[in-house]
Amino acid sequence: MHIDIITVLPELLEGPLNHSILKRAQDKKLAKIVVHNLRDYSTNKHRRVDDYPFGGSAGMVMQVEPIDRIISKLKSERNYDEIIYTSPDGETFNQPMANSLSLCQNLIILCGHYKGIDYRIREHLITKEISIGDYVLTGGELAAAIISDAIIRLIPGAIGDEQSALSDSFQDNLLAPPVYTRPAEYKGWKVPEILLSGHQRKIEEWQHEQSIERTRRLRPDLLDD
Amino acid sequence: MHIDIITVLPELLEGPLNHSILKRAQDKKLAKIVVHNLRDYSTNKHRRVDDYPFGGSAGMVMQVEPIDRIISKLKSERNYDEIIYTSPDGETFNQPMANSLSLCQNLIILCGHYKGIDYRIREHLITKEISIGDYVLTGGELAAAIISDAIIRLIPGAIGDEQSALSDSFQDNLLAPPVYTRPAEYKGWKVPEILLSGHQRKIEEWQHEQSIERTRRLRPDLLDD
Repeated sequence: MHIDIITVLPELLEGPLNHSILKRAQDKKLAKIVVHNLRDYSTNKHRRVDDYPFGGSAGMVMQVEPIDRIISKLKSERNYDEIIYTSPDGETFNQPMANSLSLCQNLIILCGHYKGIDYRIREHLITKEISIGDYVLTGGELAAAIISDAIIRLIPGAIGDEQSALSDSFQDNLLAPPVYTRPAEYKGWKVPEILLSGHQRKIEEWQHEQSIERTRRLRPDLLDD
Repeated sequence: MHIDIITVLPELLEGPLNHSILKRAQDKKLAKIVVHNLRDYSTNKHRRVDDYPFGGSAGMVMQVEPIDRIISKLKSERNYDEIIYTSPDGETFNQPMANSLSLCQNLIILCGHYKGIDYRIREHLITKEISIGDYVLTGGELAAAIISDAIIRLIPGAIGDEQSALSDSFQDNLLAPPVYTRPAEYKGWKVPEILLSGHQRKIEEWQHEQSIERTRRLRPDLLDD
């Protein structure tokens, strides 16, 4: 998988993209993420890429031209499955969307910043708008890192233990059961006895019951589907 | 506001916490974020903080003791409003939660990693579990950065233009209207004429209508509340 991320803050993404799974997946050549500084495509000698909004509302707006220039250049080099814009009013990101994006070959993620991007970019250049949740962030950079992490960890070989990904919350519309590790007792806080019993079948039954009980209590909406 | 973030990957957070709003808010002394390496609280000479799960499921589990040690130390120094654990089965993060957390003085955010944390930590030490969305990430670090960004930008003075934050999506349960900036025409793509008219009242009416129309079309659930 190849992901091009377009941003005005490339330094912000260095940590998230160069540690943990994203680093390992890139080291294993399973994924490649290239961060592009939008300012390199400015037509302005001060490398500005934003301007005041028409109609006089608050905040600055990212301009069409630099974004059109970089997206056109990238499209001349590769066929993209999706050109994604991260925005709080996009389609809400979830695990099925992560599963489906993990099958793509080439993606562009455009990180919004300031008050947003000129709407013409959304109408003419973007193919998919994604929101990672119902909250407002300073920029789309963290959203781009989240989307990259969620999809790249699903590529076979990216995480050491594929069983672990399959038993994650949401993969079967159930929350994960509680997990415990050593010591079996700490300050009087005990691990449930069943987990120490060695009865593998009973343990799995208990874990499944816990998953259902936790989902029913905490996220009954997941059981409706 | 003071935020302590506990993680096994402190380097991952350097970029997100030291750029943009989070840097500016810290420079202005409006917020202070301290990242703690959980491994410094390991009781193990290899600085391990995880172990195999009881009951034999896949993945590794973060142990109680190092987390109890660091949280106890922090609690001896400060009174915390909330001790937050980022987890996909927590309460879903949204703008009202960000608004309310932005009024807190002291927060701890514990980043989960691997398969999760020993459940006894969640029962005995955590006061609030937050999910940033219905998807699984490699670790809680990006979630902690998201929560920090969403709440710190709401502290008065953190962003240059407070009007801008007030007109963001979700603050009034409406999506933001489309925004446009110069040039008024690019490759035949035109800015709506009303925005160039100079009639401020009519422009605001148009923006409000657009907000309602976009919310009705894209996120009708927001209008139900």
